[in-house]
Amino acid sequence: MNTYLIWLEWPERCFRANDGDLKFFRSLVPKGSRVVRAKSERSFLKALPSATHAVVWHFRKEWYPRAPKLRVLATPAAGRELVAWRDAPAGVKVHFGAFHGPIIAETVLGFLLAWTRGFFWKGPMWPRAALAEHCGDLEGTTAVIAGFGRIGRAIAARLEPFGVECFGITRHGIFTLKNFHEGRSTTDIRQKPSATLRLCASALKIPTPLLRRADWFILALPSDTNTDDFLDARLIRRLPKKCVVVNVGRGNAVDEEALLAAIGEGRLAGAYLDVFKHEPTALNPGVGPRGKGLAAARNVPWNLVRMPHACAFSTRYMRECFRELAREGLLDA
Amino acid sequence: MNTYLIWLEWPERCFRANDGDLKFFRSLVPKGSRVVRAKSERSFLKALPSATHAVVWHFRKEWYPRAPKLRVLATPAAGRELVAWRDAPAGVKVHFGAFHGPIIAETVLGFLLAWTRGFFWKGPMWPRAALAEHCGDLEGTTAVIAGFGRIGRAIAARLEPFGVECFGITRHGIFTLKNFHEGRSTTDIRQKPSATLRLCASALKIPTPLLRRADWFILALPSDTNTDDFLDARLIRRLPKKCVVVNVGRGNAVDEEALLAAIGEGRLAGAYLDVFKHEPTALNPGVGPRGKGLAAARNVPWNLVRMPHACAFSTRYMRECFRELAREGLLDA
Repeated sequence: MNTYLIWLEWPERCFRANDGDLKFFRSLVPKGSRVVRAKSERSFLKALPSATHAVVWHFRKEWYPRAPKLRVLATPAAGRELVAWRDAPAGVKVHFGAFHGPIIAETVLGFLLAWTRGFFWKGPMWPRAALAEHCGDLEGTTAVIAGFGRIGRAIAARLEPFGVECFGITRHGIFTLKNFHEGRSTTDIRQKPSATLRLCASALKIPTPLLRRADWFILALPSDTNTDDFLDARLIRRLPKKCVVVNVGRGNAVDEEALLAAIGEGRLAGAYLDVFKHEPTALNPGVGPRGKGLAAARNVPWNLVRMPHACAFSTRYMRECFRELAREGLLDA
Repeated sequence: MNTYLIWLEWPERCFRANDGDLKFFRSLVPKGSRVVRAKSERSFLKALPSATHAVVWHFRKEWYPRAPKLRVLATPAAGRELVAWRDAPAGVKVHFGAFHGPIIAETVLGFLLAWTRGFFWKGPMWPRAALAEHCGDLEGTTAVIAGFGRIGRAIAARLEPFGVECFGITRHGIFTLKNFHEGRSTTDIRQKPSATLRLCASALKIPTPLLRRADWFILALPSDTNTDDFLDARLIRRLPKKCVVVNVGRGNAVDEEALLAAIGEGRLAGAYLDVFKHEPTALNPGVGPRGKGLAAARNVPWNLVRMPHACAFSTRYMRECFRELAREGLLDA
């Protein structure tokens, strides 16, 4: 009989498993299984010895010896920062969430549509002519998506029906959605290295003619594949003035000072940053309550839109996570 | 031989026919036709006697006698306020633009997505918990769309793929997209009264259980079908607290004071108004450069999002207009 140990506490409501989510989870596991909910690290560790499955935000290397029955260690996170996956014993399958794509893609689409229709524009309402100069359309624009894993591809899939031509960049080349061979459904990245691990792109290899076409330069890169300052001053200089930068991956990938300078000098049309180099989230313990750099800056230009790592804030987050675990067979007896 | 007279000047760039648009127009008319572009009322009236077709923003009743050859009078506008269509002689076919739906639907979708993901929320970036409380999802929400003409239906068609259940309200009942019999393709509203003319809904007839479900109450009503104060204090009281009001039709349909009061008192979650009772546009000559009422108000709550009649600001506006005229056979020899 399996014991499913759920420890999904988080300050933000959508990232906590609530009673309804737990009920839904119970409906997905074999009848007669135990489902145990931990609300603290202490209660989690107390229950860990009997757990066959654990669904968590955090898991430390030193906890594996305390989990002799553990077969599946799953986290909703797409990023690999908070679970010590490299240290997992051979018998433990580690699963990172792969359900975020459609949620984040809706956020990106919402930003792009709202941007083109002037919702972020600041200025007097009337007369309207200045706003009209700012407004445009998605149809006929081009998006270059750095990182073409599940999230990057989900973004392309959401944008293409609106007439956006999308090019995904990976370490291996440039792809349209049509050309990209579908990734496998499993995401146990040790046993079968997943598509996401192969995604770090070499900025230097992106052809200039493609960059010159970019109305949108969208980053959906992980932090752990050598992506620090992927978008640096040199790459920014190769982007056209009309380009709007979007980062919904990890904050390490953008040189914030270079980006801010380019926006201030009109060398880029704008940016939407969801993530930051020094954001005060679990990714940056000790950075302080407001972060540093652009995460903390008080006054930024109107065309630099910032959100606090919120692109997956969705009421369907937990259920999509659990649905995926069931779909992948990770909750089986 | 036809003479096509184009007089499409407007302060906002997207509503002006530029050289590229004119070139595109020429490609749509029979070879050997004359295409004349007027840049002022004076030059328009000078050319009017020889025009077989005119594409205009404005047309006055007293101009018909000066247009003996006129067969087609077309305007990009969806609203019927600026062209004296009731006075047109029998031989003149009057055409109002019917291409706005997809453009406006993208604006509405952009607003809804941006709203649910917290882009409009005002407050400190960190901590994120308050923002997370505000955020939600489109999937599983319900939209009630007052006015289910081409624009209302285009909105439903754009929202449904995102999991929004849409109900369109017309004077004749409540429809899902699936149930709504497709309207005709012609929009000469005198010869064949178009769907839009039948659309004024009687607010009293909307069943309360439907209103209580409304996450989004979207107005896409014309101004000339008895729609003044359609959304009044009484109807607002029947909407749930969670509801966000969207008006992309005409400003006359909303009691602005009642709406502002409801938002201020937390009886509605928010609103996005694109149009206003007293907006300083061609619809309200003499209202002054800033308008009155909510069009002019300086301080409004953060959850009342205002845009200056901009929901169709799109770079594809003119081309979609011309494309439609060709598709409808209105440019034929």
